[in-house]
Amino acid sequence: GYATKTFEATLFPGDGIGPEIASAVKEIFSAARIPVVWDEQHIGKAPDPRTNSMVTRENLDSVLKHKIGLKGPMATPIGKGFRSLNLTLRKELDLYANVRPCFNIPGYKTRYDGINLVTVRENTEGEYSGLEHEVVPGVVESLKVITRKASSRIAEFAFAYARENGRQKVSAVHKANIMKKADGLFLECCREAATKYPDIKYEELIVDNACMQLVSNPTQFDVLVMPNLYGDIISDLCAGLVGGLGLTPSMNIGLNGLALAEAVHGTAPDIAGKNKANPTALLLSSCMMLRHIGRKQDADNIQNAVISVIAEGKWRTADLGGNSTTTDFTKAIIDKLE
Amino acid sequence: GYATKTFEATLFPGDGIGPEIASAVKEIFSAARIPVVWDEQHIGKAPDPRTNSMVTRENLDSVLKHKIGLKGPMATPIGKGFRSLNLTLRKELDLYANVRPCFNIPGYKTRYDGINLVTVRENTEGEYSGLEHEVVPGVVESLKVITRKASSRIAEFAFAYARENGRQKVSAVHKANIMKKADGLFLECCREAATKYPDIKYEELIVDNACMQLVSNPTQFDVLVMPNLYGDIISDLCAGLVGGLGLTPSMNIGLNGLALAEAVHGTAPDIAGKNKANPTALLLSSCMMLRHIGRKQDADNIQNAVISVIAEGKWRTADLGGNSTTTDFTKAIIDKLE
Ligand SMILES: CC(C)[C@H](C(=O)O)[C@@H](O)C(=O)O
Ligand SMILES: CC(C)[C@H](C(=O)O)[C@@H](O)C(=O)O
Repeated sequence: GYATKTFEATLFPGDGIGPEIASAVKEIFSAARIPVVWDEQHIGKAPDPRTNSMVTRENLDSVLKHKIGLKGPMATPIGKGFRSLNLTLRKELDLYANVRPCFNIPGYKTRYDGINLVTVRENTEGEYSGLEHEVVPGVVESLKVITRKASSRIAEFAFAYARENGRQKVSAVHKANIMKKADGLFLECCREAATKYPDIKYEELIVDNACMQLVSNPTQFDVLVMPNLYGDIISDLCAGLVGGLGLTPSMNIGLNGLALAEAVHGTAPDIAGKNKANPTALLLSSCMMLRHIGRKQDADNIQNAVISVIAEGKWRTADLGGNSTTTDFTKAIIDKLE
Repeated sequence: GYATKTFEATLFPGDGIGPEIASAVKEIFSAARIPVVWDEQHIGKAPDPRTNSMVTRENLDSVLKHKIGLKGPMATPIGKGFRSLNLTLRKELDLYANVRPCFNIPGYKTRYDGINLVTVRENTEGEYSGLEHEVVPGVVESLKVITRKASSRIAEFAFAYARENGRQKVSAVHKANIMKKADGLFLECCREAATKYPDIKYEELIVDNACMQLVSNPTQFDVLVMPNLYGDIISDLCAGLVGGLGLTPSMNIGLNGLALAEAVHGTAPDIAGKNKANPTALLLSSCMMLRHIGRKQDADNIQNAVISVIAEGKWRTADLGGNSTTTDFTKAIIDKLE
């Protein structure tokens, strides 16, 4: 049956702690008897002229072929004029939607309880156009680009996601009182999408108010949809409410089911190679990947195991206040798998 | 002596609950024997051709003459193509710095404790340029403008403010990994200013990380300086940490000491005229105004009285979970004044 049908997936272990947390995922997948064949990919050490970044044509082709991938953190060499590796992957693969579920992990206490929301971020344009220039010395213009095409696509995505996942409400986040045309167009597309989903509630929030509401009353939110930069800011803010980027999953979604799940935390060079890293964000991201290809049961098994190990508190890595190694934590998860 | 020297100040009561909370300020100032003569100003009911908004030349001249003012909330008619009244005042008066202190009010419980930070927001350019156009149907460009002049001015302001107010650290918030030129220029100006203030620590945070840090560990911050939109977002986020815009003061500062303090919450039309409004934000803003003109003692008296009334909890307006009227609350503050 489907459960035993082998599938291939791209794996970018990434830099720093990337290889260690990727190993954790591989071990847990094999203990859970998930019939994956990983196509391990490594970013080039020198810029590939075909992508104008360290991302190679082979890297891209691997994801395009398998249509599904998992990515650890990557370090972009700074100040050398290269495009961020993360951005290159999103752009070259047209991964237009960035989805980040945000929920409290039982037993891991923060100031907040009962959060269960998802941010849906437009991932290809907006403030990330890369179009900037110095008009005269000391005067820089940076272009925010909002298109009907990308805005409708992400708005439709958010509503379809809400319906498929049994969610009740989509909140569009904007600053259309100031960027009347740009964010106005974004809102227009959200309103159009909303009319096609009468079963899903729709509301609009100005971005400053959205942030104030998120820190004071986050349980009011369900699905949030927004342009690129607001999504960047708000998804990190939300991660902060439940314990940080080390605990929160993320997935980038493109056309025809293409998807690249990723841990969005850093490479943590200080603890790299020391068997101290917490693989939770990559594991929960791998669960998003599994759900995306229809392996809901596998995803739930792994996610429940990860969450109960953290909740029980016996095996916790240093970032969560414990002193378990990555290996200990991984083994504890494997012991929990049904 | 100075304490009894009469001074004039512009007062914009504003719309909705504005007149009620402005009355509270006037009563408390007179009970505190602050020798102010208010020059009460009202925004026009029709657009003034000389400002292209409802703000009249007389409004602006009043602030320019007294060099100090206090402003309640104002409602901008939506969708009629008028510029926001708040923005018009900031722009026309070149109020380049928006300063918002954020601190916990003892006795008023939120999820956070010990917060004592100040956001310094560039108030004239950035994403608020108003320059937008539709390039072809469905493609909108919005210009973010960053200049060396405005960036240096706000950076210098933040460091000078930190030194004058006995603060230790300035954190510059940016997204220069993406907007390399625009936010890069902003950072360059912050670094230059930092070198002139070796007594003040300096650090830089990417805006998404800044928001994550603010919701997880806000007590690490002291003074934050940033471009316009990040300031808009982060100042509201910070207000949310300590109880919302009804409790947090704000002041806009221009050249040659010009300053307009303002309550940044809304006009609350639902409770307008019902003697239910909470005047705290306007009162704390009026204290910023008093400090700005050197009346530190008066400011401390009023601020302490406001804070102890809220802390004691006997007289609280509905927004704070009580059922006191604006008048009760005002009287309680007057009773507390030394
Ligand atoms: C690393 C950086 C370019 C990236 C972004 O700004 O999108 C990151 O913050 C994220 O959210 O994935
Ligand atoms: C009312 C609005 C135009 C304003 C802004 O965006 O600056 C408000 O949010 C503020 O922060 O004072």
